Parts: sequence; structure tokens; C-alpha cells
Amino acid sequence: MVFRLTILGSSSALPTANRYPTALLLNANERFFLIDCGEGTQMQLRKYKFNFSKIDHVFISHIHGDHIFGLPGLLSTMQLLGRKKDLHIYGPAELEEYLNLYSGKQDFSEIFKIILHKTGHKRKNLIYSGKNMEVWSIPLKHRVPTTGFLFKEKSVGRNIRKEAIRKYEPGIEQIARIIEGEDIKLEDGSIIANELLTLPPWKRRSYAYISDTKYYPSIAGQILDVDLLFHESTFLSKDEKMAEKTFHSTAKQAAMTAQQANAGKLLLGHFSSRYKSLNPMLNEAKEVFENSHLVEDGDNFEIKRIREGFESGF
Amino acid sequence: MVFRLTILGSSSALPTANRYPTALLLNANERFFLIDCGEGTQMQLRKYKFNFSKIDHVFISHIHGDHIFGLPGLLSTMQLLGRKKDLHIYGPAELEEYLNLYSGKQDFSEIFKIILHKTGHKRKNLIYSGKNMEVWSIPLKHRVPTTGFLFKEKSVGRNIRKEAIRKYEPGIEQIARIIEGEDIKLEDGSIIANELLTLPPWKRRSYAYISDTKYYPSIAGQILDVDLLFHESTFLSKDEKMAEKTFHSTAKQAAMTAQQANAGKLLLGHFSSRYKSLNPMLNEAKEVFENSHLVEDGDNFEIKRIREGFESGF
Repeated sequence: MVFRLTILGSSSALPTANRYPTALLLNANERFFLIDCGEGTQMQLRKYKFNFSKIDHVFISHIHGDHIFGLPGLLSTMQLLGRKKDLHIYGPAELEEYLNLYSGKQDFSEIFKIILHKTGHKRKNLIYSGKNMEVWSIPLKHRVPTTGFLFKEKSVGRNIRKEAIRKYEPGIEQIARIIEGEDIKLEDGSIIANELLTLPPWKRRSYAYISDTKYYPSIAGQILDVDLLFHESTFLSKDEKMAEKTFHSTAKQAAMTAQQANAGKLLLGHFSSRYKSLNPMLNEAKEVFENSHLVEDGDNFEIKRIREGFESGF
Repeated sequence: MVFRLTILGSSSALPTANRYPTALLLNANERFFLIDCGEGTQMQLRKYKFNFSKIDHVFISHIHGDHIFGLPGLLSTMQLLGRKKDLHIYGPAELEEYLNLYSGKQDFSEIFKIILHKTGHKRKNLIYSGKNMEVWSIPLKHRVPTTGFLFKEKSVGRNIRKEAIRKYEPGIEQIARIIEGEDIKLEDGSIIANELLTLPPWKRRSYAYISDTKYYPSIAGQILDVDLLFHESTFLSKDEKMAEKTFHSTAKQAAMTAQQANAGKLLLGHFSSRYKSLNPMLNEAKEVFENSHLVEDGDNFEIKRIREGFESGF
């Protein structure tokens, strides 16, 4: 039951040979969620050996080029690879025209269906609910309608201990009640506490993607206690005015949101190409939130599965 | 006076981590001509350390995605880098709608102008004439309107020998006549042959780009004696029917065109990703045209400047 985030692109609008425009891939139990799709995403997926056919859900934060220019090439490649399955894209309403133009030109609508789920950006919305995962859109403050995304595993309840079944041989009805948390009464009248019969549930692992946005204090409350937070960090604090003007964040502001959200770990990305060294960015983030990290293309961040009541999954 | 072709992308429609979609860059005396612009072209330009501001002319063969999906990102980056100069794009009429959609969305028309020169595809046309270079469009046979391009240096005339000026001290009028090829008559009545006064002109170096197309014998006559020929080589001969059906060429057909055109050197590219090894492609091309080469992303091919009557410039 893997829960692993791969950075496919960590640049902002001006990519370099080593930092591609924004794209990230979340592998949750071999279901793959693509988050934003900057130019070159399909080549990065090849480079890091991901299987295109396992991607059924694409989440687009906003329609700026550095977050979407990889979509036409990715869709075209999926078509050429013979995709038949529907592809679900979650994004702002503005994405529709972009997709229509592309799919109209390529005439591939008969081959596989693209289903656009418009996210809206006024409030936090549950936009996806699958077998093991829920995804919410998180309203951000950028120059165009933009949302972040919160990915959180579903609650799976307590797990019955195999040795308890062997020992007490409960019936099917009793097993159902045990899973719901009840104690059981044996024939001799003694009561066995549920804690002896079950293991605590797996902790619900979570990841939030916050890009692009200016500093916006209400974000933190919507991603409270998130395990892994990717937050845009376009500028250094010394350029805070530029961040304000362009609706981006500084590294320090990203760390403030991580701290207010009580995040487990902060990943900084979406760097402006103006900075020769990014160490000052890491330093200013760490002053506010110690567990801060700068990401590189190709980096993997995994959250281990642990049971409730145990320590962090990193 | 460099004349150097760099391969930025050598794949066909399904790129890999090592072979990006089609794009090539011709450096002719530090003027840079970009030929096709597949996804990731701007990252390849960064990787191979080219200066975006030196690219003023972009040539697009046709509007299939693997030849144009890098345009929006490249234009966006040029805008962010503060470009002021006009950008000239040469391509099929169908490119207009694609560019309009993009520039409409990005609203960068006030920053620098994109001038689209529609190539037409019925006959060979002179589409660019600069200080040192002329470019012709070459009609190809593909599933949509498509042209190749022939780049040829302009004729620069004979060069006067410095030692002849020192020795015979001709006047300004005499110098003009010498450059035009005349002999001169000295005061003592003796005649000095022009060959003793001048060097032969530089040979006009040329490069032809032929992609995408099915085998089409009339191409060769339009690029006769070209020094460097890049020709698409999507399939092996054993898949000739597939080539015919999809309007692509086999390696052997590329070599036949090179041979008929009396080309100096043949570069094979635009490979289908279906082949694990490309050696059979090279072998079947070499059987027809010995000086055949498979290209890789990042390869450079230079033609040295030589004077007329001398051997090949490779």
C-alpha cells in the first residue's frame, strides 16, 4: 500500500534543462494521480519509467501555460498507445475551451473519452471519491481561478487480529460487530475487549498540493494535519513585494502555511529561475518550519503506512 | 562563418526520455533558424545552451502535434525573457488558428509581434531571403498540408586576393571589375588573368529538411546537390505498407531520395518508437546511399566553408 509522490517538474514559468515546468505524480496503491501537466510531462513520465495506462485521473490547478502545456502531448501519446479507458480531468471551467480545441483538432474523441470535472474555486469541494482515496479542491488566490488539491486516504476501520479469530472462533455476525468496535461475550459469560480482538485502523495518509497562490492564511485550516505539503515557493522574502504583485508566495510564507496547518513535512517547489542558489530559500523556510525540503525533478517522497496512535509515517 | 545543424529532437510521435519530438536548429553564421518545434524544444535549447534571443525565424513543416506542441511554451518563455523583436514563423495556413488561440489567451501581442508567413504547399517557393541565406519550401506528401525546407547560402562572388592588391595597386573601379571576374590590363600592356587576382567564391552551403512525407520522387529534383539532407525515416522497409498508409518513409526510401538528389550526406531521424534497434535502418539506407547517419538528440553536423572547385565541406 504505497503512498509516494514523485516530482516531475519543479520549475515555475521559465524551465531549465534540469527543472521542468510543474507536474507531480502521486502513486497511491498503484493508482496514479497526475497533478498539473507542464510541457515535457510525458517525457518525464518516460524518464522515470511510469506506465501511462495507469493514469486515470489528472488534476489541473489553473490554466497558466507552465501547468498545462504538456496536456496535448500527453493526450496524443495516450491515444497512440491505444488507450480505451476514460480519462478524468479535474480543473477550472476555463480548461474546457483548451481541451475542446485540442480534441477537436486531433479528433480522438471516438477513441477514448475525456471527462472534465469542473472544480470551481469558491470553497473546498470534494471532487473525487474512489475506493481508497478522496480528493478535495482548495481555493487559492492567484491571477486566474486556481485551486490546490488535498488527497486523503479513506478510513478503512479497525482490522481484526487473525490470532483472535483462531482463538475465539467468532461467528460471521460477531466478526461484523467486532470490526465496528464492539467487545464480544463468550459462552462462559466472560467479555473480551475489542482492543484484544482488533488492531487500530491504518492512519489516513494525506498530501496537499498548493500552487500557484499568494500567501492566504485561510489555506492552512483546510489542510489541517496534512502529512505531506507541497507548497509553491516562487520567491525569497526579500522579493515579497514581487510575490504579492504576481500572486505568488515566498519560501517563508509557504513555511508559515505549513506551520499553521500542522503539516508533517513541507516540500518547496515552483522556484523562480532568477535565483542562482536556492539555499537561502531553504534557510528562511526552516526558520519557520523545520521539516522543510527543496525539491528536484525526479525526487520521491514516501509516507509509510502506520496504525493510528503511532508516530509519523516518514 | 559557421554552418551547423543541431538535432534537438529525433523522435516521431511517441517521444522517449532520450528522443524528444522533432526540432532542429541551424546555426548559419550565428543566425539561428529553428525547424519544427515539438514538445520540450525550449528545454532542449536550454540543455544545449542556445540563446533564445538569437532565434528570429521558425519554420514549421505541418501542424501535427509532434512538430508544434513546443511552440506555446517557447513563445511564452520568449515573452517572459522580455523579447521585443518580431518573431517570424513560416508554416502552413492551418497554423494561424493555433497561434491565434495561444496568443489570444496569453495576450502577449503587445509585447512582441509574431508574423506568420504562410508557406503554401503546391510548389517550391522562396519563403525567406536574408543577408546570407535563402530558404525555399518544398512540397511534401503527408496526411495534412506539409512542406520541407531547403536552406542555401547566398552567392557572395569572388574574393580579391590581398597580395594582388599590394602587387598591382588597382584603382577602385578596377577592383570592382576584378570582383566581377574581369582580367586587368597593366600600364605596360600586359594582362593579368582574373584567377591570379581573385579566389574562387565560397561554395554555397545547403541543408534540406524533408519531414514528414511518404516517398515522393519529385522531391529529389528540388533539392539537387544539397550538402546535408535530413530525411524522415519513420519505418523499416519491412513495414513499407505501414509507411505508405501513414504517409511516412522508410529508411531505404530516404536513401533513394538522397541518392537521386546527389546529396552530400544523409541524416536519418523521426524514428518510430516501435524499433528496439535502429541498426537495420542504417544498414538498409547505406545499401542505397553510403553516407547515411542515424541522428541522436544533441548531435551536431557541421559543413565547413570551402571555395568552389574544392572537395566536400564535411
